[in-house]
Amino acid sequence: MPGGEGTVPAVPNDVVVGVDLGGTKLLAGAVDRDLRVHHRTRRTVVGIDQGELLDRCVAAVEETREAAPGEVRGVGFGIPCLIDQRTGVAVVAVNLSLAGVRFRDVMAERLGLPVWVDNDANLAALAEHRHGAARGTSEAVVLTIGTGIGGGLILRGEVYRGATGAGAELGHMVIDEDGPRCQGNCPNHGCLEAMASGTALARVARELATARPDSGLGRALSSGREVSGPLVTELAHDGDEAALEALRVVGRYLGVGLSSFANIFNPEVAVIGGGVIAAGELLLGPAREEMLARALPPSRDQMRVVPARFGHEAGMLGGATLAWEGVEATP
Amino acid sequence: MPGGEGTVPAVPNDVVVGVDLGGTKLLAGAVDRDLRVHHRTRRTVVGIDQGELLDRCVAAVEETREAAPGEVRGVGFGIPCLIDQRTGVAVVAVNLSLAGVRFRDVMAERLGLPVWVDNDANLAALAEHRHGAARGTSEAVVLTIGTGIGGGLILRGEVYRGATGAGAELGHMVIDEDGPRCQGNCPNHGCLEAMASGTALARVARELATARPDSGLGRALSSGREVSGPLVTELAHDGDEAALEALRVVGRYLGVGLSSFANIFNPEVAVIGGGVIAAGELLLGPAREEMLARALPPSRDQMRVVPARFGHEAGMLGGATLAWEGVEATP
Repeated sequence: MPGGEGTVPAVPNDVVVGVDLGGTKLLAGAVDRDLRVHHRTRRTVVGIDQGELLDRCVAAVEETREAAPGEVRGVGFGIPCLIDQRTGVAVVAVNLSLAGVRFRDVMAERLGLPVWVDNDANLAALAEHRHGAARGTSEAVVLTIGTGIGGGLILRGEVYRGATGAGAELGHMVIDEDGPRCQGNCPNHGCLEAMASGTALARVARELATARPDSGLGRALSSGREVSGPLVTELAHDGDEAALEALRVVGRYLGVGLSSFANIFNPEVAVIGGGVIAAGELLLGPAREEMLARALPPSRDQMRVVPARFGHEAGMLGGATLAWEGVEATP
Repeated sequence: MPGGEGTVPAVPNDVVVGVDLGGTKLLAGAVDRDLRVHHRTRRTVVGIDQGELLDRCVAAVEETREAAPGEVRGVGFGIPCLIDQRTGVAVVAVNLSLAGVRFRDVMAERLGLPVWVDNDANLAALAEHRHGAARGTSEAVVLTIGTGIGGGLILRGEVYRGATGAGAELGHMVIDEDGPRCQGNCPNHGCLEAMASGTALARVARELATARPDSGLGRALSSGREVSGPLVTELAHDGDEAALEALRVVGRYLGVGLSSFANIFNPEVAVIGGGVIAAGELLLGPAREEMLARALPPSRDQMRVVPARFGHEAGMLGGATLAWEGVEATP
């Protein structure tokens, strides 16, 4: 394994490959030490079995490797799974057929490269901490709000994963013990994800659309459009009061969660990314206000609430960051 | 300062003084390296001003020092305050007139001994981790449930304090965003402390006593007794169904909080101490059941929920543990 021999200094053209394996598609990038992306490869991964999925991962890395400007020193994968960091095995995989796979070892063997693996939300936190909105902090909470809410924690400057790698499921902290049932394999009620995710935003917006048929949201619903998070954000930016109200409701729930994170972690920053952050301050304003009304001093005044620097490439860039740190730590 | 010169090996009779400064009383103990307590000193600290409070702290340590079997190497104080660990200043003190005091430096100067300071809940966590129910774990959540709920976190084997020392306020994690207003200086609603503390237990019990006048709880209320946590526990141990129900209600709220802690921290153990743990499994049983029904695998199955080893001396013993670790880390 080229990266395993150590003492080889990184030369300017050296790269790693960062891979974000999502529920429906895969993005790979050849990334240099300064986080510049030299080549991108995309694949769909819908409706395929485990063997084909692993084949596509290998093919995407190989294509990226051939297009890279220099030597590929290692590969960092983000996968939407709980990973047992003691073994590199994907323990719980909701959308992908990876459960039980010794993913790290299988990929390392097939690629002939050093491989590191983490879940996508932890990698988004790593990318934001090393190169983005949480740079320079010691304690940071990073939420990736899309269909669900992924959580990543930087504690004492390093990604916190818990005893076996299953930690930092911040989206599954309860904020309303009697709230709606959560999603997917989560048996809980009133989790932050059930109250403040893109899915929750769409639910709140549908209720408001029904209650206010003359609003922009109401007209969209009656014209047969799907009331989704992106539509709510679009209408809110256009000034539709119902859409703005939907973002305020969900933003306040987010703020309840942030008040708990402030009290638990006394962090310097909470970074909010994922698709829902397209709403920007229309979401973060109410969230910040609610957090400030609820959290304890001095933590509430010490925690900034800011949008993420990295968008849909956060997982890929985090995978690359993980790989670079692994390469450099390899003796 | 005797402990500051370093390279002096601990001899069997050497001790440190651990001090737990509570809202109404002070407990100091001369504690050897094996956590044996050789002498205890008690003082009340009610209704006195700052100067007198500091004088009583000094006098209690001096009395303990005179009765100690050997040299006193240092002093560890637990105080019911947020402490800015960068400066040793008590930032927020709810019950005691210590806000703004450079407590660590003032005590070190007056005692002529090395002094370490932390809040009482962090010290309970330290004692449980080094010598008690969390011994041998890497990640542990420790709750001290009394009038309020104090929180302590052991993460990667060390006490977690947050960016400035204000972290681990686990009792102020929200479990019901629309729940009752919290206590003291906490502006939040539906915190774990508002739902599952001894105060919450008494509130739930009073409601049940009113609704069920023929129960043991109801008869206690109508006979003019104060429906307090200890009374509920006493009646529950006697089999009173209303008292048992009060513990079940509060235990389930505790379990909601534990499900969040399991998902956030993926810890090996949650340790429950404080006065309310006198109810034992009558509280922990419902809590564990609720946690298991809500938390994600594999974290829910990896987190044991156990009673604390140390009771009302946890803070003093934690102070002593902190002092011993400080003495041994001093070059």
